[in-house]
Amino acid sequence: MTEPLFDKIAIVGLGLIGSSLARGIKKHALATTVTGFDGSADVRARSKDLGFCDSIAETVDEAVTDAQLVVLAVPVGAMAAAAQSIAPHLADGAIVTDVGSVKAAVVRQVADVLPAHAAFVPGHPVAGTEHSGPEAGFADLFEGRWCVVTPCARSTDASVEKVVALWTALGSTVETMTPEHHDIVLAITSHIPHLIAYNIVGTAADLEDVTQSEVIKFSAGGFRDFTRIAASDPVMWRDVFLNNKEAVLEVLGRFSEDLAALQRMIRWDDGQSLQDHFARTRAIRRSIIDAGQDTADADFGRPHGHDD
Amino acid sequence: MTEPLFDKIAIVGLGLIGSSLARGIKKHALATTVTGFDGSADVRARSKDLGFCDSIAETVDEAVTDAQLVVLAVPVGAMAAAAQSIAPHLADGAIVTDVGSVKAAVVRQVADVLPAHAAFVPGHPVAGTEHSGPEAGFADLFEGRWCVVTPCARSTDASVEKVVALWTALGSTVETMTPEHHDIVLAITSHIPHLIAYNIVGTAADLEDVTQSEVIKFSAGGFRDFTRIAASDPVMWRDVFLNNKEAVLEVLGRFSEDLAALQRMIRWDDGQSLQDHFARTRAIRRSIIDAGQDTADADFGRPHGHDD
Ligand SMILES: NC(=O)c1ccc[n+]([C@@H]2O[C@H](COP(=O)([O-])OP(=O)(O)OC[C@H]3O[C@@H](n4cnc5c(N)ncnc54)[C@H](OP(=O)(O)O)[C@@H]3O)[C@@H](O)[C@H]2O)c1
Ligand SMILES: NC(=O)c1ccc[n+]([C@@H]2O[C@H](COP(=O)([O-])OP(=O)(O)OC[C@H]3O[C@@H](n4cnc5c(N)ncnc54)[C@H](OP(=O)(O)O)[C@@H]3O)[C@@H](O)[C@H]2O)c1
Repeated sequence: MTEPLFDKIAIVGLGLIGSSLARGIKKHALATTVTGFDGSADVRARSKDLGFCDSIAETVDEAVTDAQLVVLAVPVGAMAAAAQSIAPHLADGAIVTDVGSVKAAVVRQVADVLPAHAAFVPGHPVAGTEHSGPEAGFADLFEGRWCVVTPCARSTDASVEKVVALWTALGSTVETMTPEHHDIVLAITSHIPHLIAYNIVGTAADLEDVTQSEVIKFSAGGFRDFTRIAASDPVMWRDVFLNNKEAVLEVLGRFSEDLAALQRMIRWDDGQSLQDHFARTRAIRRSIIDAGQDTADADFGRPHGHDD
Repeated sequence: MTEPLFDKIAIVGLGLIGSSLARGIKKHALATTVTGFDGSADVRARSKDLGFCDSIAETVDEAVTDAQLVVLAVPVGAMAAAAQSIAPHLADGAIVTDVGSVKAAVVRQVADVLPAHAAFVPGHPVAGTEHSGPEAGFADLFEGRWCVVTPCARSTDASVEKVVALWTALGSTVETMTPEHHDIVLAITSHIPHLIAYNIVGTAADLEDVTQSEVIKFSAGGFRDFTRIAASDPVMWRDVFLNNKEAVLEVLGRFSEDLAALQRMIRWDDGQSLQDHFARTRAIRRSIIDAGQDTADADFGRPHGHDD
């Protein structure tokens, strides 16, 4: 047995990510004790029943006291409040990290709230599903995925090292970058895809000529893939867009320009340009599969009953 | 044993759909003989090796002669040429059907080319994967999916009945509508999702601030779902957009308007409207899962190693 990385870890926010983290930390024995806390009494009760933490605290100070590492796993818009709630109770030299999907805004909101003796190492595991809440979590969520760590003025080398060691032990590969660069990379790889998925599902719901039941029946033509990520938590995503406004609006501008170009090709029957555009996107798919970030099986390997 | 529905079926075009059809027809014994033909000598040779047809014809007239049913399974832009090539060889009273993803344009291009003694029943199985070619096909592709049949002036009641019986026997549920209505329904459930997926993958490839390798690494944040359908066949999709121009441009206009509204909510920090919009799209996801058109498993049931 190797030594656990931390004596006590406190996780604040026990949804998909917080509960997956707790499960992964227990599975790999990365802490002697994992204590969980959530703002919602209902989530605390369910988490107690699920039993993925050593203990569920009834107050945030009980959770945080004596913890060497505190993980903030609440929606981005709740990070400032969560940081304020833990600040007075942090052990001397405690490390605080977070898992928020936006980084520059979290650094702005959290860094100044924490006492001088604590270190802050912002992080973002690029792993998730469309489900939320403590029941949705599982230990291997971070296995084979990337985790971005974005050191800031409040990070020390030692604290960054320990947070990187945690994610590595959970099976993730860690990449370090600035909070600002993180926000533009995630705008294109995650935030805009979610915005567009939410948008098209809304457009479909509002068409007068097509009934809801037709949309549902014929969704296997492509639409259903978009509905998966459009089923993600509304509060989490509201907070992402409000807190990564600049990068999202910039990438969205590019997306709309490019879409206008495709629209024009269709309007003017420019088949060659359409075909050229469609052909160049295949290489990216191949690279994503080669990098182990998706399955090559047709239809994501959805059950189809292949049997010939 | 029940009687096969047809004596001889000829399939013209042996890609994903044509070869899946041949496999399904053999599996369910829906014809005494299935003969295949493809414009490409290479595809004919590979199809012969794969052995999913009783025979692969070297010429289209050999394939079509004596067939009671001829299925056109070529890209939409090749339907007119395929119809011309079969027309002189059609048996008296033969039924011609197609599987094209667009219907009004196919009816316009095909109906007049066929001899008066033949019937034409346009169809579209709403089932597919991102892969193409004869190797990608499988017998159960149509199982549990919808198939749209769009009778036209050249359809007779008897011919429609036989085509419906074929799809039903393959496990599909058939819905009948006009070609024009089909084209608007499929514009929102399939064509626009593909256009948008192709577009965002292109936008990602062109950003200066984000490297290709970053896009690939962090694609699990949502982007990778879009790359799946953006890996579909460029020729097939070029033809879809060129042949369903009006409906695509109309729905695209709505999509862009709705996206502009979301953009404005972000710009003006209107969190409540964002959250409301994101909340209403969840119900559609639930209905699609309840209707058996997708899996409820997190991440489409992608292998994640759930084990707790
Ligand atoms: N879901 C993903 O795919 C994903 C992936 C990577 C990163 N992230 C990030 O991870 C974080 C958590 O996301 P999640 O999906 O795990 O969310 P979730 O399932 O909705 O869970 C969040 C939990 O935090 C609780 N909470 C809110 N404010 C709190 C506070 N001030 N103190 C204590 N608990 C509080 C919530 O309780 P209430 O319900 O009572 O508010 C809820 O139980 C977010 O910042 C998100 O951006 C998510
Ligand atoms: N893929 C889907 O998800 C899906 C779903 C539902 C419906 N559809 C429709 O089904 C049809 C076929 O799509 P697919 O995915 O099966 O395409 P595919 O895998 O690309 O196969 C099409 C085959 O037709 C051949 N072909 C082209 N012109 C021909 C002609 N005049 N005569 C004989 N063969 C010809 C092609 O040969 P070459 O390669 O030499 O051109 C190719 O082998 C399209 O109309 C499409 O819109 C597709």
